[in-house]
Amino acid sequence: MAFAWIDEQAELRRRAGLVRTLRPRPAQSPLLDLASNDYLGLARHPEVTEGAARAARTWGGGSTGSRLVTGTTELHHELERELAEFCGFEAALVFSSGYAANLAAVTALAPHGSLIVSDAGNHASLIDGCRLARGSTQVVAHAEPDAVRKALRTHEGAAVVVSDTVFSVDGDAAPLAGLAEACRAHGAGLVVDDAHGLGVLGDGGRGAPHAAGLAGADDVVVTVTLSKSLGSQGGAVLGPARVIDHLVNAARTFIFDTGLAPAAAGAALAALRLLRGEPQRAARARAVAAELHARLSAAGLEAVRPDAAVVSVRAPSPEGAVRWAADCRAQGLAVGCFRPPSVPDGISRLRLTARADLSDGQIERAVRVIGETRP
Amino acid sequence: MAFAWIDEQAELRRRAGLVRTLRPRPAQSPLLDLASNDYLGLARHPEVTEGAARAARTWGGGSTGSRLVTGTTELHHELERELAEFCGFEAALVFSSGYAANLAAVTALAPHGSLIVSDAGNHASLIDGCRLARGSTQVVAHAEPDAVRKALRTHEGAAVVVSDTVFSVDGDAAPLAGLAEACRAHGAGLVVDDAHGLGVLGDGGRGAPHAAGLAGADDVVVTVTLSKSLGSQGGAVLGPARVIDHLVNAARTFIFDTGLAPAAAGAALAALRLLRGEPQRAARARAVAAELHARLSAAGLEAVRPDAAVVSVRAPSPEGAVRWAADCRAQGLAVGCFRPPSVPDGISRLRLTARADLSDGQIERAVRVIGETRP
Repeated sequence: MAFAWIDEQAELRRRAGLVRTLRPRPAQSPLLDLASNDYLGLARHPEVTEGAARAARTWGGGSTGSRLVTGTTELHHELERELAEFCGFEAALVFSSGYAANLAAVTALAPHGSLIVSDAGNHASLIDGCRLARGSTQVVAHAEPDAVRKALRTHEGAAVVVSDTVFSVDGDAAPLAGLAEACRAHGAGLVVDDAHGLGVLGDGGRGAPHAAGLAGADDVVVTVTLSKSLGSQGGAVLGPARVIDHLVNAARTFIFDTGLAPAAAGAALAALRLLRGEPQRAARARAVAAELHARLSAAGLEAVRPDAAVVSVRAPSPEGAVRWAADCRAQGLAVGCFRPPSVPDGISRLRLTARADLSDGQIERAVRVIGETRP
Repeated sequence: MAFAWIDEQAELRRRAGLVRTLRPRPAQSPLLDLASNDYLGLARHPEVTEGAARAARTWGGGSTGSRLVTGTTELHHELERELAEFCGFEAALVFSSGYAANLAAVTALAPHGSLIVSDAGNHASLIDGCRLARGSTQVVAHAEPDAVRKALRTHEGAAVVVSDTVFSVDGDAAPLAGLAEACRAHGAGLVVDDAHGLGVLGDGGRGAPHAAGLAGADDVVVTVTLSKSLGSQGGAVLGPARVIDHLVNAARTFIFDTGLAPAAAGAALAALRLLRGEPQRAARARAVAAELHARLSAAGLEAVRPDAAVVSVRAPSPEGAVRWAADCRAQGLAVGCFRPPSVPDGISRLRLTARADLSDGQIERAVRVIGETRP
């Protein structure tokens, strides 16, 4: 029978304690949220939700087509202009998701015959981009510019180095300056995903590439998401105008996808304007992360020092991580639970988000619950 | 220098007359729209835009995380339930785009060692799904169940047949009954993308699989988009509950993507309810398509007989197609212009959308302009 093998896989997952199920949440959750990626607490901000509502009313429920046919509105254009300007790049191109933006950037910038050097800890969307691209991929040791240098030396011709700026699982930052140096020594392009950096790192949240002095460089391309710090949905690629023009002409997830819904563009634009006007939100997210880490460490928990707003706490096992997260939830605290196969190193952990709008009392409560429920 | 090859490609495109540029549209366009995929004219319907606005206010500007962490709301669940019920399937799973839904369905249902049989005219997202999947792919002649049968005979073990139900470029329908028969003779699964069928074909717009008597079958999986007939953004996979559970556990574009924005879910749900209450919208879209085809043919234009709401008109060359579309636009008519490399057969054409809300006068005007501007 068709799909019979699915039942065998389901049984294996059950035995390994790795079954995932969806848990629909209500509009007003009683839980203290340290699980979402709403780093700046903007997803529920009235200006953001009104930005979405106004855009839907003005432009419609959807963009009605590919960005190349009817799916580009003046609203998309406005968002692209302001996003590029904020992050310090010449141009930007908005996609329906960060996933689609990463697939686009990697596939369009790694043609046949080129080399892609990819960090071992990269996000699934960058990995899928490498697999879809016509270039060949070398995966290198996590966050090691020397490994990148060595890989680049094996190849003549076009090459790109691909990395997250902040790695989602452990919240550690990539050595951007070292990567850029390795790229420049070889004439390679640098493509970095700043999903967890935008809104958190750099001057007023302008992101990790801005902080590393790479904004606007002609050999650097940055992807971002609109669904984390900007509280909306979608993704974007930022870079030199010639690279953006190339994506418009060559990136399949741009050409063959419906444009981002106006409501999502409107929400992201409102959030971007809030961030520009309130740059302290970025600093607050970093301060909350540092405070969370300090308190967790003081409580004897194995937390990774955060480089941005993700705080990762090691769990003893996948089952232990699931139980720990469930026990936190029973105490009113929502935390992320990352486990195989969603973690590159097989290590299970709780993943905490240092939201800029967490109060000191909420931080204290979160750390207390995590400590008390420790397996 | 990094990305130097981009300038060479841009120059080649310029010389070939294949440069694509974005043209941001205003909120109130003076053009008669036969270019969008808003088949039922619902993207601007007040219940749809209010559905988006209300959802943003109630649930926030974004879903704030992966569907497996914080990105599943009761609204997503409601949309999934109603969509599955409407189309006649056991379960549904909503994605941030139809592209992501297709990548998910193909990759998760074609494991290592399996065979994927893919129609030569399939959409880019299905093709990318085949390229990402661990199974091996055989591309077969367009819309030929015998070719599918022959390909399946070459393989022992798990297999899936992958096809659009309505092909985007020419608007022709896949031979679904024949494909299903070929699959069943071999024990293969059938995965079809009903992006252009939902809302147009089948009883009250329930889609091409419903019309072919395949709804609810345990060996059939359907992907749909929320961004065409439903006037929103996003995609969904419909199928047996065990297949949907498998996707939740195995599909990378589900697990590692942020959930669909509440506004998009709210807009799609409102559109779905409108369609359920006003089933004549689907029949009207088909009638408009037939009328467009008849009038274009009577005017001596080479139009393909439409199986759904896409009407394709052959153009003499890529440059001819671009000029034709531009001349239509100058006369107040927006039409799609498909040309290499976005067409599988290299043939350029105008692509017209038979929107259900086009009046007879608008149809007449569209055909007159297309005839008068013919190259």
